[in-house]
Amino acid sequence: MDSSHFSPVSFMRPAVDAELADFVRRRRAEVLEIGEELAPVLDALEAMLAGGKRIRPAFCYWGWRGAGGPETRAIHVAAAALEFLQACALIHDDVIDNSDTRRGLPATHRRLAVLHASSGWTGDSAAFGQGAAVLLGDLCLAWCDAMYQSSGLSEAALRAGRPAFDLMRSEVMAGQYLDLVEQAREADTVDAALRVMTYKSAKYTIERPLHLGAALAGRHDELAPVYTAYGIPLGIAFQLRDDVLGVFGDPDETGKPAGDDLREGKRTVLVAETLRRAPAAGAAEFRRHLGDPDLSAETVEWMRDLITDSGALAACERRIDRYVAQATDALQTDAVADDARSALADLIVAATARKH
Amino acid sequence: MDSSHFSPVSFMRPAVDAELADFVRRRRAEVLEIGEELAPVLDALEAMLAGGKRIRPAFCYWGWRGAGGPETRAIHVAAAALEFLQACALIHDDVIDNSDTRRGLPATHRRLAVLHASSGWTGDSAAFGQGAAVLLGDLCLAWCDAMYQSSGLSEAALRAGRPAFDLMRSEVMAGQYLDLVEQAREADTVDAALRVMTYKSAKYTIERPLHLGAALAGRHDELAPVYTAYGIPLGIAFQLRDDVLGVFGDPDETGKPAGDDLREGKRTVLVAETLRRAPAAGAAEFRRHLGDPDLSAETVEWMRDLITDSGALAACERRIDRYVAQATDALQTDAVADDARSALADLIVAATARKH
Repeated sequence: MDSSHFSPVSFMRPAVDAELADFVRRRRAEVLEIGEELAPVLDALEAMLAGGKRIRPAFCYWGWRGAGGPETRAIHVAAAALEFLQACALIHDDVIDNSDTRRGLPATHRRLAVLHASSGWTGDSAAFGQGAAVLLGDLCLAWCDAMYQSSGLSEAALRAGRPAFDLMRSEVMAGQYLDLVEQAREADTVDAALRVMTYKSAKYTIERPLHLGAALAGRHDELAPVYTAYGIPLGIAFQLRDDVLGVFGDPDETGKPAGDDLREGKRTVLVAETLRRAPAAGAAEFRRHLGDPDLSAETVEWMRDLITDSGALAACERRIDRYVAQATDALQTDAVADDARSALADLIVAATARKH
Repeated sequence: MDSSHFSPVSFMRPAVDAELADFVRRRRAEVLEIGEELAPVLDALEAMLAGGKRIRPAFCYWGWRGAGGPETRAIHVAAAALEFLQACALIHDDVIDNSDTRRGLPATHRRLAVLHASSGWTGDSAAFGQGAAVLLGDLCLAWCDAMYQSSGLSEAALRAGRPAFDLMRSEVMAGQYLDLVEQAREADTVDAALRVMTYKSAKYTIERPLHLGAALAGRHDELAPVYTAYGIPLGIAFQLRDDVLGVFGDPDETGKPAGDDLREGKRTVLVAETLRRAPAAGAAEFRRHLGDPDLSAETVEWMRDLITDSGALAACERRIDRYVAQATDALQTDAVADDARSALADLIVAATARKH
């Protein structure tokens, strides 16, 4: 492999994909025995899994390798299990936000609403889709831990990984709830946005998967502080980059309409910085538009200009740079094995680089 | 204890209650550290847990004791974990059905909608409540397996229990999905109702908890057929009794308005029998009313009369008797330890007796 093209995420992808496919194939028969009507639900699950970026498995894997864990199938399985947690989080998130699309395709509950409508069933198609998606998310959550537990890692390893595995699940749900509360309170401070980001993104996406990998390899206590010092700032930088893309990103790449985060009214750091930096009249008008699902393209353009002209975008980019520097510094330690250190450094770039 | 008043469910209750309280207390601190805003969500969880009947823990426990398992704290913990699965199922079920009440109290999503409204937050209170309830159900599901895994049973026991534990979760979600599909298809046959009942109730409530108990005690293969022969008919009889109560039960005891199942349009065996046995004109009118949320008290009365006069109620009672006899017969074996056999016999009565 040409090292200039080595990607620490896509390196993992074939193994994770294969393990997920294998797990679902074995469970499919079991589920279809309950009822053949479940086939479209499993298809929706496979479609959701296919689109996953394998970010959490990658961090879990490199957390393990950084702790000196060997290349084994078992770690691929345990890491791949995290994709089921992510599938649950996304399926339920789309129900909660009533989002129509995910990665440019119909959201799971929309897909299952279409199944209802095209089958000519009675009742409300949207309600059917939502109900079915809640149940499918539940199934994903149950399969996450079934896959983890059946990974083939030793009982001692699985037990050592449990605290991180359990915290990861509590924290993402708590973080999502805080996000709901902050939206409802119309919180618009940088601190509020950073707290939600810390739990919903930084810990869930990076820190805990790394902790899990280290714990599975039996070196949690030694490596957890290093992985936290790397993972939290990187996770926040990653989310900040995502927030910038949510406003300025190319719809073809993000899979979401341009300016979608503004229509949704997401309380991001970018928004908080804009409200803090813009002139009062502009900030008031910006606040009025934020969260309006019917925002025109012109208004989106006006809002983008205010984000740029107020200096909020530049401030956000400086913040990303600062967090990236912190994450990079955290890797300056011999505690993490060399190849993993290099992969984790590459992951900083992959997670936070500006997209063109 | 006066044996004439011995109840194999309430016998379990103090131990299960204590373990649940202990588990939640330890996690509460962890969750509140993420954000104090989570306190009302944990309160909602505790309210839901407090109302649970501990039926699944009781069957798990007696499945263990029937397999010769000793009286230990660890089995109480593992059995109690099933209450978190049930809490998830009920919280999500109420979201899916958009039910206002559960056991005579506001459903969890309604309770959290009230929190939103009384806090003066912006946005739609109902949507907030539903979103928060979806997340709380997810937390329950994660805690179910966290509690199971931390029960203190041996690794070998936990591993042996895994297949039943995993199947139980897949089956209840699949069963609930089939229920949605059958409602949407307006299925009105006895067979359709029996299939949903088998997965959503009989396996989930009785058979799999018994299998889990036997597996944890290391005797799954020997006892599973006995527990299936007992659990499936008893589970169906239990659900049939519940269906009768859902139409004829005292609102003070069921915690639901009189005739609520008729307003909800539940496709029960009782309904299927009525549609099959009533004169065509009556059946057609019955079908028209079924699922109308605004059914008047008079129409509910008319529907009840048709259920009785058509012979559907008597047929349902005969069916209950038949299933009870099957469950009773299944216990005629030395494979199950004596005290557990006696408790399981008592559970037949407790689960299926007519309420006055």
